[in-house]
Amino acid sequence: MGTIEFTVEYSSPNTWARLGQLTTPNGVIQTPVFMPVGTQATVKAMSPKELEEVGAEIILANTYHLYLRPGHELVRKAGGLHEFMAWKRPILTDSGGFQVFSLSEMREISEEGVTFRSHLDGSKHFISPEVSMEIQMALGADIAMAFDECVPYPAEYDYTLRSMEMTSRWAKRCLKVHNRKDQALFGIVQGGMYADLRRTSADELTDMDFPGYGIGGLSVGEPEELMCEMLEVTTPRLPKDKPRYLMGVGSPDYLLEGVLRGVDMFDCVLPTRLGRHGTVYTKNGPLTVRNAAYSEDFTPIESDCDCYTCRHFTRGYIRHLLHRDEILGVRLTTLHNIRFLTNLMEQIRLHIKKDTLQEFKDSFLEQYHQGVQ
Amino acid sequence: MGTIEFTVEYSSPNTWARLGQLTTPNGVIQTPVFMPVGTQATVKAMSPKELEEVGAEIILANTYHLYLRPGHELVRKAGGLHEFMAWKRPILTDSGGFQVFSLSEMREISEEGVTFRSHLDGSKHFISPEVSMEIQMALGADIAMAFDECVPYPAEYDYTLRSMEMTSRWAKRCLKVHNRKDQALFGIVQGGMYADLRRTSADELTDMDFPGYGIGGLSVGEPEELMCEMLEVTTPRLPKDKPRYLMGVGSPDYLLEGVLRGVDMFDCVLPTRLGRHGTVYTKNGPLTVRNAAYSEDFTPIESDCDCYTCRHFTRGYIRHLLHRDEILGVRLTTLHNIRFLTNLMEQIRLHIKKDTLQEFKDSFLEQYHQGVQ
Repeated sequence: MGTIEFTVEYSSPNTWARLGQLTTPNGVIQTPVFMPVGTQATVKAMSPKELEEVGAEIILANTYHLYLRPGHELVRKAGGLHEFMAWKRPILTDSGGFQVFSLSEMREISEEGVTFRSHLDGSKHFISPEVSMEIQMALGADIAMAFDECVPYPAEYDYTLRSMEMTSRWAKRCLKVHNRKDQALFGIVQGGMYADLRRTSADELTDMDFPGYGIGGLSVGEPEELMCEMLEVTTPRLPKDKPRYLMGVGSPDYLLEGVLRGVDMFDCVLPTRLGRHGTVYTKNGPLTVRNAAYSEDFTPIESDCDCYTCRHFTRGYIRHLLHRDEILGVRLTTLHNIRFLTNLMEQIRLHIKKDTLQEFKDSFLEQYHQGVQ
Repeated sequence: MGTIEFTVEYSSPNTWARLGQLTTPNGVIQTPVFMPVGTQATVKAMSPKELEEVGAEIILANTYHLYLRPGHELVRKAGGLHEFMAWKRPILTDSGGFQVFSLSEMREISEEGVTFRSHLDGSKHFISPEVSMEIQMALGADIAMAFDECVPYPAEYDYTLRSMEMTSRWAKRCLKVHNRKDQALFGIVQGGMYADLRRTSADELTDMDFPGYGIGGLSVGEPEELMCEMLEVTTPRLPKDKPRYLMGVGSPDYLLEGVLRGVDMFDCVLPTRLGRHGTVYTKNGPLTVRNAAYSEDFTPIESDCDCYTCRHFTRGYIRHLLHRDEILGVRLTTLHNIRFLTNLMEQIRLHIKKDTLQEFKDSFLEQYHQGVQ
């Protein structure tokens, strides 16, 4: 047994959906799973206790942000990310690649790595596969990700090909230097929107025998069908007995489509970001509780939701808090949104077991896309 | 028995300190008590559940703010403040007077009441004793306060005299229109820094037979000795069997001085405001956990504190959160600061019972004023 152990407990006979159990140094996760994002070693507005209460089994932290502030050496001194942020359950850190490409200023990519300027103070930095491993080993999450280049959408075939090939070479360099025994390293499949490149990338990474695989560069602006198509050429080529993680995906419909195509893990900033902007998930679609329409609505966001927010507070009160910039407002919306997604994943797991996921997806999405009356 | 019932359980033989029990429509409070401030129907950054967990027995809400937003009629429609904010324990609302005088723009005071412009949008409003009662009855707290004029420091004798006399007349008008049976109305003693005016005010209000008495216009910039002197001429003239509430006071030393002079209730924005600014209470005095000195301090704020913050998080982590503007940072500092004060009140109550409050005060303040090493 390696650092992590993944067991597929049940595979749907009709779809590619599967139920799994992922055992990590800091606990066992039921898959498919949604991971809330804790960019700066905190899931925005939430306490670790609340995250546990809403059923978050694993969270993601961002290597790029933590490298810049407070610095990975400080986190190492604190005893690692789990100790630093007082989160006892599993953590996954991304590679820093996506943020370097999307947030930093002035970046130069070479075979060696990426030189960039911090979005915080303009200071110059260099991250390579080796540096990313060094940072992630210092952070000490249960799962680290290989350093990759995330190709934007749309992108030319030639550029995407060269980038995918470099991501494969970088993955090998990551494997070579990663030596933390209590941390698993996942490779990342790239290849943009080109089926043949996705297949090649999946095959090359599978040959390197990672304990798990990220699928990167999707949900970057392409149509939903294209994302599904790319998933359909990718997941069948990945080893059945290894977890598959669709990076940066977390809207309810994408979660359902992903699971039906064999994905086991997801992360996304949407539930926390929407919450901060005053939008909450409901079974009838997103509801902008900030709106004037809810000022005298003294019903909960969702009357059948079991979260702390819905058990105690009304839309009218939450709207008041949001309009007055009271912290509790954002706490309550964020808490509900995370619970909405962990609850959706619980339902998804139940329906996989009953072989009714396709039907559940259809009825869930029909109601979801009806919109709030 | 009236709306509230107050029983003095024990009176110190050496000081004016006393232990009491205040029974209100929404629960029983042990006095002396500290009330955290929930200006806009939320104690900033806290959830009701957390407030209960740190031992907050009663909170204060601000009439001025709630009148402006979301409006007292909306709160009435929501079923009152307890329902609106999902706080099951007692609430006290202030009269709006202090905020009208300190926050609003362009105010004109007449015998009838005060005309002012909102600090939010400049709109024109009028609050009189009758309007204040109407608002507070709509809000529906357990305890309402009579509408008063809070005299600034320093103030001339003649102005203070005239203002105190008007406050007495306003108190009578409040009594006349207040008719909510499940809400107690407290009078407010004024009189600035003039002993004879304080005595007259206390006598006049006592004659009106309120179920409790606020002591206003103290801790407004005067030296500590002057505040103590004013308390010493005021509390002995108030009825022994009624609760006494020193308004706007909440620093640890003032709480101790107040209790020793017969005060039963206190409120103050300090613990929440300091928390938001990155300062936390410790037995060795305030500690600015935002400071660089604590970046690699992986010990709790106070190792023997029983709050959620101190049981799980380090100064270094809290500093990181505060510097990154992460909401959890302010949540953790605020939570600790409120617990520090509720814990101080618990200790104060124990020492009253043991007749050791004077000694406790001396040793507590000696350590507190030593400062953090």
